Amino acid sequence: MRDATFTDMIVLLHLGRLATPGERRLLDAILIGVADHGSGAPSCAAARLAASGNRQSVSAAIAAGVLTIGDEHGGAGSNCMELIAEGLALAARDGITVVAAAQTLVERAVRKKLRLPGLGHRTHTTDPRTKALFDLAETEGIAGAGVTFMRALEEAACAAIKPLPMNIDGALAAILHDIGFPPPAGKFMFIIGRVAGLTAEVAEEYDRERPMRIEFAVEYDGAPPRSE
Amino acid sequence: MRDATFTDMIVLLHLGRLATPGERRLLDAILIGVADHGSGAPSCAAARLAASGNRQSVSAAIAAGVLTIGDEHGGAGSNCMELIAEGLALAARDGITVVAAAQTLVERAVRKKLRLPGLGHRTHTTDPRTKALFDLAETEGIAGAGVTFMRALEEAACAAIKPLPMNIDGALAAILHDIGFPPPAGKFMFIIGRVAGLTAEVAEEYDRERPMRIEFAVEYDGAPPRSE
Amino acid sequence: MRDATFTDMIVLLHLGRLATPGERRLLDAILIGVADHGSGAPSCAAARLAASGNRQSVSAAIAAGVLTIGDEHGGAGSNCMELIAEGLALAARDGITVVAAAQTLVERAVRKKLRLPGLGHRTHTTDPRTKALFDLAETEGIAGAGVTFMRALEEAACAAIKPLPMNIDGALAAILHDIGFPPPAGKFMFIIGRVAGLTAEVAEEYDRERPMRIEFAVEYDGAPPRSE
Amino acid sequence: MRDATFTDMIVLLHLGRLATPGERRLLDAILIGVADHGSGAPSCAAARLAASGNRQSVSAAIAAGVLTIGDEHGGAGSNCMELIAEGLALAARDGITVVAAAQTLVERAVRKKLRLPGLGHRTHTTDPRTKALFDLAETEGIAGAGVTFMRALEEAACAAIKPLPMNIDGALAAILHDIGFPPPAGKFMFIIGRVAGLTAEVAEEYDRERPMRIEFAVEYDGAPPRSE
Repeated sequence: MRDATFTDMIVLLHLGRLATPGERRLLDAILIGVADHGSGAPSCAAARLAASGNRQSVSAAIAAGVLTIGDEHGGAGSNCMELIAEGLALAARDGITVVAAAQTLVERAVRKKLRLPGLGHRTHTTDPRTKALFDLAETEGIAGAGVTFMRALEEAACAAIKPLPMNIDGALAAILHDIGFPPPAGKFMFIIGRVAGLTAEVAEEYDRERPMRIEFAVEYDGAPPRSE
Repeated sequence: MRDATFTDMIVLLHLGRLATPGERRLLDAILIGVADHGSGAPSCAAARLAASGNRQSVSAAIAAGVLTIGDEHGGAGSNCMELIAEGLALAARDGITVVAAAQTLVERAVRKKLRLPGLGHRTHTTDPRTKALFDLAETEGIAGAGVTFMRALEEAACAAIKPLPMNIDGALAAILHDIGFPPPAGKFMFIIGRVAGLTAEVAEEYDRERPMRIEFAVEYDGAPPRSE
Repeated sequence: MRDATFTDMIVLLHLGRLATPGERRLLDAILIGVADHGSGAPSCAAARLAASGNRQSVSAAIAAGVLTIGDEHGGAGSNCMELIAEGLALAARDGITVVAAAQTLVERAVRKKLRLPGLGHRTHTTDPRTKALFDLAETEGIAGAGVTFMRALEEAACAAIKPLPMNIDGALAAILHDIGFPPPAGKFMFIIGRVAGLTAEVAEEYDRERPMRIEFAVEYDGAPPRSE
Repeated sequence: MRDATFTDMIVLLHLGRLATPGERRLLDAILIGVADHGSGAPSCAAARLAASGNRQSVSAAIAAGVLTIGDEHGGAGSNCMELIAEGLALAARDGITVVAAAQTLVERAVRKKLRLPGLGHRTHTTDPRTKALFDLAETEGIAGAGVTFMRALEEAACAAIKPLPMNIDGALAAILHDIGFPPPAGKFMFIIGRVAGLTAEVAEEYDRERPMRIEFAVEYDGAPPRSE
């Protein structure tokens, strides 16, 4: 353990075993990838707001940032990991291929008008981060049923719905699954990575910015003034 | 106690005794006054950000709002209550009048270039909320040494520095002092009142707004790209 | 509005209208009732823990307390308000009485082995707080369909299952419904009331207790030491 | 950057440059060392309390844990880094040796009855973790003025006061200083490491424990019941 890295410790805490070099490398890539997406992300903006009004506790600012993380912000990985688990359980239960299971879940999503977590991107037609992660997973021998399922899901969704490239959440969900993490780990890994980013955002807010600098324009659209 | 109000309970919890009708009325006015200053205040903006990314827990959103409250946001009342306590202790110790103690503290602020909490307002030359609170305090027989000190502080500061009308934080600090609250109560009462406002802001965000709607424009001004 | 109380403000913020005197009185009783159930409640214990390790920000301590509030702690009122709304919608849709709707929901709970929120108490066979609230609701003319439904639910559950007296969560859910609050307000009112209690708990922790005083005995029951 | 680790990213975010292999290794050791000290630590206990009452949001539980971190819990490293900075500035300003500066600060602590952060341990006479970190720092060539100062401080304090072995906070403070981090980084690194531990504690609470299981015995020592 003298050469263990912090990432090894994260694996040990969650899985109760040491990481292989390949697992460590992929988890490092994932944690780096989620650490900071700019000060405008809800987590960073909330942390800076708290640092702006309450400069007595860096913990308060970081906690405010963490609190913005949920199903809608940083939660897509966990949701996608649940879908992967469901798809693979379906394949095992019904004795069908993973590809057939993915098609079944795409058909259900079409029928029930559900969004498929892990697919789709506002601008990319192929998300370059997905390719980078999956190439690394192949090289390191980590890619397993999770990666297979997500590739089948992407193909089935593109055929049945519209071009829906697998995004970074889908890619990290597949890899976390293949390392052996349960679905909630998607959110936990996002939180661990993002907290590193939040500490740097909060450090900068304390160092560079004056308190109470952040102002939000809000337009009132409620009831008119009462006549009396 | 069958007719007790929530405000009575707040006094009982903090002072260990029942409120007089006048104390209750002034505390009601203070709590109403701080409950909500619009969605753009840091506390409300942070609560709405958390509601926007994490729609699984209203507690998380309200806590994010609370975390923005510190010396810089909602803390002026407590800071002013400490100044009042210091001024009155000075008068008692040195056997001087409250007016003389206020002048001494203004002189020190000028000498050390310190801001005086509770004085000054961006737009008002006379803060109408201060007058309303102090009129009520006189009518109800609550006004005591705290009100006297703050009036003397305002006068001394206006004479020595520039027009610095007592603001709402100075007024509520004087009244909380005269009811018998210790300085930290300024922040506690702000939090109690503001949490009522935050619950309504969060309720509206859940009801009316879609998740992840809030975007912040951030301008990058860091290091240029590395040539590689 | 010069005579408005903080409780009036809470109604105004959430319902957009002034409270009647009876509504105000009932809401005061509810907020007082949830403010503080002793330092051992999860919300108070968490707030004191934060005050114990982080004495730089009272907001941090109060936020830690708020974060323990969820479906399992302080959430029974909201869950019960949803059941009331469902029962009354069922009665309206199927043209059946509220009593019949309550029986239907009890039968479903028995069939699906679900707990009925708002019923049952560890020690009381009749919860004295329920009686006090409902008496006040009758006197003030507030008791409406919510109270009728909860009484019918209690009777149907006692007949079909076992003695399950309506508890304080069931009582406040009925009354909040009859005042016109939507289900999430059950949790919001709990938070508003409890924050008042938390401020007093945190004030006491700062005043009386030394930092880091709280220790928890934890018994390790994990894997044995590795031999090598 | 393809081989970068999460720890490299933390250095990049805070220092704006890549870590050397030695720096990375020391920081890994520090982050591992603070990640988890058992479920009884205030941060873990608060996180589990929130997971116990509010099972709708893992973020809420982790944030509750973060909020317990302050000067008293997890803050000794930052406080010690400030002392190191002060000691080295003193040496530079007065043209005295680091050893002389350490003696001056110990004398001041004795005179003013201040505790010296980074020194002292309840049970150890030599903290084995300090030795392990400092050995690694020597091997990797990281040990600099911070390590020199802390060793001088330990020696001066042991001579002037009583056996006060340098503890883990003193050791990590020295090393973080020598890597180039400013004092607040002591708290930030503690938070980053501890959040990894909190995610595992919260995962276990969700998986293994029933809600609302945690009870705290509290002994009432307040006013007696009122006679009337």
